[in-house]
Amino acid sequence: MRVDPVAFTRALVRCPSVTPAEGGALALLETTLAALGFTVHRVTFAAPGTPDVENLFATLGSGRPHLVFAGHTDVVPPGDAAAWTSPPFEGAVVDGRLIGRGAVDMKGGIAAMVAAVSEVIAARGPDIGGTVSFLITGDEEGPAINGTRKLLEWARERGIAFDHCILGEPTSVAELGDTLKVGRRGSMSGTLVVEGTQGHVAYPHRADNPIRRLSRILHHVLARPLDGGTAQFQPSNLEFVSLDTGNPAFNVIPAKVEARFNIRFNDRWTPATLRAHLEAEIGVAAPVGRWRVEWDPTVSECFITPSGPFTAMVADAVEAVTGRRPEPSTGGGTSDARFIKAACPVVELGPVGTTMHQVDEAVPVAELEALATIYRRVLEQYFAN
Amino acid sequence: MRVDPVAFTRALVRCPSVTPAEGGALALLETTLAALGFTVHRVTFAAPGTPDVENLFATLGSGRPHLVFAGHTDVVPPGDAAAWTSPPFEGAVVDGRLIGRGAVDMKGGIAAMVAAVSEVIAARGPDIGGTVSFLITGDEEGPAINGTRKLLEWARERGIAFDHCILGEPTSVAELGDTLKVGRRGSMSGTLVVEGTQGHVAYPHRADNPIRRLSRILHHVLARPLDGGTAQFQPSNLEFVSLDTGNPAFNVIPAKVEARFNIRFNDRWTPATLRAHLEAEIGVAAPVGRWRVEWDPTVSECFITPSGPFTAMVADAVEAVTGRRPEPSTGGGTSDARFIKAACPVVELGPVGTTMHQVDEAVPVAELEALATIYRRVLEQYFAN
Repeated sequence: MRVDPVAFTRALVRCPSVTPAEGGALALLETTLAALGFTVHRVTFAAPGTPDVENLFATLGSGRPHLVFAGHTDVVPPGDAAAWTSPPFEGAVVDGRLIGRGAVDMKGGIAAMVAAVSEVIAARGPDIGGTVSFLITGDEEGPAINGTRKLLEWARERGIAFDHCILGEPTSVAELGDTLKVGRRGSMSGTLVVEGTQGHVAYPHRADNPIRRLSRILHHVLARPLDGGTAQFQPSNLEFVSLDTGNPAFNVIPAKVEARFNIRFNDRWTPATLRAHLEAEIGVAAPVGRWRVEWDPTVSECFITPSGPFTAMVADAVEAVTGRRPEPSTGGGTSDARFIKAACPVVELGPVGTTMHQVDEAVPVAELEALATIYRRVLEQYFAN
Repeated sequence: MRVDPVAFTRALVRCPSVTPAEGGALALLETTLAALGFTVHRVTFAAPGTPDVENLFATLGSGRPHLVFAGHTDVVPPGDAAAWTSPPFEGAVVDGRLIGRGAVDMKGGIAAMVAAVSEVIAARGPDIGGTVSFLITGDEEGPAINGTRKLLEWARERGIAFDHCILGEPTSVAELGDTLKVGRRGSMSGTLVVEGTQGHVAYPHRADNPIRRLSRILHHVLARPLDGGTAQFQPSNLEFVSLDTGNPAFNVIPAKVEARFNIRFNDRWTPATLRAHLEAEIGVAAPVGRWRVEWDPTVSECFITPSGPFTAMVADAVEAVTGRRPEPSTGGGTSDARFIKAACPVVELGPVGTTMHQVDEAVPVAELEALATIYRRVLEQYFAN
């Protein structure tokens, strides 16, 4: 049985799996992988304050090496469906492009992985010379609490160990395979609370306007980049994303103002050194005791997968199919690779991401086919010995 | 009939006239002034979106000169009544101080004015050699829409013209009569709306964070005082009172941030020159087209009552009673003098304001008596010829 990457992407797009809905996508994947000989587990995780989320783990073969394909079937909402060229959950092919929510992020990548595995099994039989698995979540676009992190723990508790992982996120920038994601910056957030003394605006000397203090802090911090980048990472960056006072009166100096921020940081920092650095810089601009930082408990650490035989093997496969050698990259946002990196080395390779999360998200049919071929070459090389 | 300033202040304090409630205060004033021979008008004004407010205009005598005492009987809420030494609407005298909401702001001033007038009438009879009036509102602590402004218009429509006005606000700073308010700074407010381009925080180069632009504007504007003060006014001052983005997400760069501000300005500026100046300064810090100022329609213009025989007469009276010559001042917030100044020259003279709007608002009994004596000397001098 051979799975066609385009037809299977269309079938997955037709499952309206907006986080946290399963939408039929995991059921379709279960049926298809079972038909290919995989042992399939459907696992639902729950946590207070978050929706229950379905996940899937499927495995074929035994022993090492163990390559795991990772990804997610959940998608972001389509927004105004009427603004789309064709309905977002139809998967129409127009001018050689498959249009639909999740086409590139990342049902296309999953379909190409399944197609690649089906080709290898068709050519070599079910004994592939090791183990290949699928680790698929329905909670990547959501809180990411009941997804990949718990599924990895679930696997670990069952004695399942992975040697390498390929995540099929849309990592290509302009052309398929131009980029191989070998790391991600970390992410930390916090709320800077600046205190003052409330008072009447006509008597500023009797009050202490916290907005003046915040202005000094913003000016000081924003004028000092965290770093200039490192060998493998772009510069760390801090963005203030919300300033909030909520003072409805024009004639009252407020007692407090809050500034919420996010930092994307490279391997120059750990969360602890970064926290200390930022608080020291704020302390230069404003005396300690009149502000505090409330750090958000959700922290994504920075990670890097070192260059070696595995990254070279993936790069070789890309070059063989596309004629271009991928640029190793650590840019952009976070992904579930931040969880996987603790289990095994992970690289990310998938379609061009330009249209992700947008109206008319679309992937060229030829790109899906080429991606399936790349994944197939990786599998062939990976299990060659 | 002689009105005692302390007893009459207590009687007024016992009327719970929290804006916009009349609370019996204007009725008490009406009865008392009528008994002194005044012709009393009770006038209620209304406007959409504001509570109806009662006001009082009372007049005695005829012809020029015409001196008008102005003030308000409404008070701010007492807050937690249990926190007061004695109930806020009781007017208890404790250790020589009359405690109660409105004791200094400004039922004490009104009582001293009425007492002064009663003494003059008792000594000289009802023909005082001109006209003396009371212009009293119940809407000074509220929106100030249905109060002094409309009452002045009401008087003007009836052909009533004033030569001079004394407003009894609590203008003394440390000791009774240390300050004679001869002007007030103006007040203007606005909302600075800074535009940007929304985007994912991991890709700041694809977005345009309006908070960075606002930070440049705040730094630029706050580092440049509007002026250093003028001969009769303290420096103009701008305070940002609220910064608001309302972005609940840590991973999204917002499209917009708003900064609300108030300016207290002196006679170096008109509203028009100040608007132009501030917008020019903002334009230096951030390119035009990415921000706008929405000016609040409520503008209080700056005003000054020039020194002359009238201000000297009031200062003489203060010096004769207290032994100190009042310092002319234009500091602090706005008052209803901003409306009266268009009708006639106005000065403000009243008790020490330290406790106004606070728990245990209180005025020394001796201060009330001295204030009544000052007002009586002004009346005697004013109508001497």
